[in-house]
Amino acid sequence: MDTVPKFDDLFISHFADLVRWRRDVRRFRREPISSELLETIINFASLSPSVGYSQPWRFVCVRNPNLRSAVRNNFLACNVAALESYEDERAAHYAKLKLAGLDEAPEHLAVFCDMETQVGHGLGRQTMPEMLEYSAVISVHTLWLVARAYGLGVGWVSILEPAEIKKILGAPSGWKLIAYLCIGYPEEEHLDPELSRNAWERYRKQEILIR
Amino acid sequence: MDTVPKFDDLFISHFADLVRWRRDVRRFRREPISSELLETIINFASLSPSVGYSQPWRFVCVRNPNLRSAVRNNFLACNVAALESYEDERAAHYAKLKLAGLDEAPEHLAVFCDMETQVGHGLGRQTMPEMLEYSAVISVHTLWLVARAYGLGVGWVSILEPAEIKKILGAPSGWKLIAYLCIGYPEEEHLDPELSRNAWERYRKQEILIR
Repeated sequence: MDTVPKFDDLFISHFADLVRWRRDVRRFRREPISSELLETIINFASLSPSVGYSQPWRFVCVRNPNLRSAVRNNFLACNVAALESYEDERAAHYAKLKLAGLDEAPEHLAVFCDMETQVGHGLGRQTMPEMLEYSAVISVHTLWLVARAYGLGVGWVSILEPAEIKKILGAPSGWKLIAYLCIGYPEEEHLDPELSRNAWERYRKQEILIR
Repeated sequence: MDTVPKFDDLFISHFADLVRWRRDVRRFRREPISSELLETIINFASLSPSVGYSQPWRFVCVRNPNLRSAVRNNFLACNVAALESYEDERAAHYAKLKLAGLDEAPEHLAVFCDMETQVGHGLGRQTMPEMLEYSAVISVHTLWLVARAYGLGVGWVSILEPAEIKKILGAPSGWKLIAYLCIGYPEEEHLDPELSRNAWERYRKQEILIR
């Protein structure tokens, strides 16, 4: 429809719920996601803003068990290294956190940025070349929100070596890994962020500076 | 409210409209934004996901006319340099685009990432340190969507030198500029992206790769 939509208070209140209830999910039911739904949320992501309309997001569904297993091994190695960087109580706390749902999530989606795309003719990224990556990051967030609206949970796994994952997946040389996502129906819905309910970190109210 | 929200088809259809009608706005009415509304959309942005719950987003409202004028001059210089990078028809086309609404927008909001924050205890950013910046990027997108729901337009100006803007605004040394935003009520609502309606670039349907 091409009539200008009006977003009323009820919509805004539901949208606020969506933002507040979007969570980084690490506990998934094994129930599969239909390929139509997966395509729907990826197509939504493609409607994100991008610098110079460059649309640099690239999506790779990882289904091959050998590839998934290689990704999982990379996660495990990185997670051990991360654990070793903490000491005493903080290390014990870290060891107890569940940080990825790679085993249970029915879908793994790798999101790349095509660093060499000519789409958009370079507009808006001469002084801020990082805008290209930022555009791909934003597509992840769009996908995350719409997934949640459809009752799906998304977990962003960053305890990985991006160059290694790129190699495992055989991605083109000009692509950069932005996000490795686990997607599936969550075991549980909750309002408090995972790291807040597990007392790792708490909400910080931001002061707005005026200049 | 703490009961798990259900997002029905009607909500999803309105959310699709929000995603589709969110635009990068460069033409603003001069009508001011209430400070309550500005605070509301910034508080929404603070509910975004962040690596390790690090919440690294920092918001600076730029009101001082001298600072705004310095930002504007930086944009103008960068835009001339950008124009010089194009040739022939592409240069003529670039010259005709309106790429920022710095003069008309009632609010300028600079979004920084606190690169030195200890919040989150470094979780999730050992192998992907860029996750910190990505978190701040995502807060911009949350703000953008909620602003649109409230009838506001946002324009992301990236034709700027980030280090120069940081200096102009006197931001702390550990902060990195992520986005310089113009915010206000748009002159017009439209569905087609600015660079699509001006024939700079067109929509590209993404193929989903399976591995």
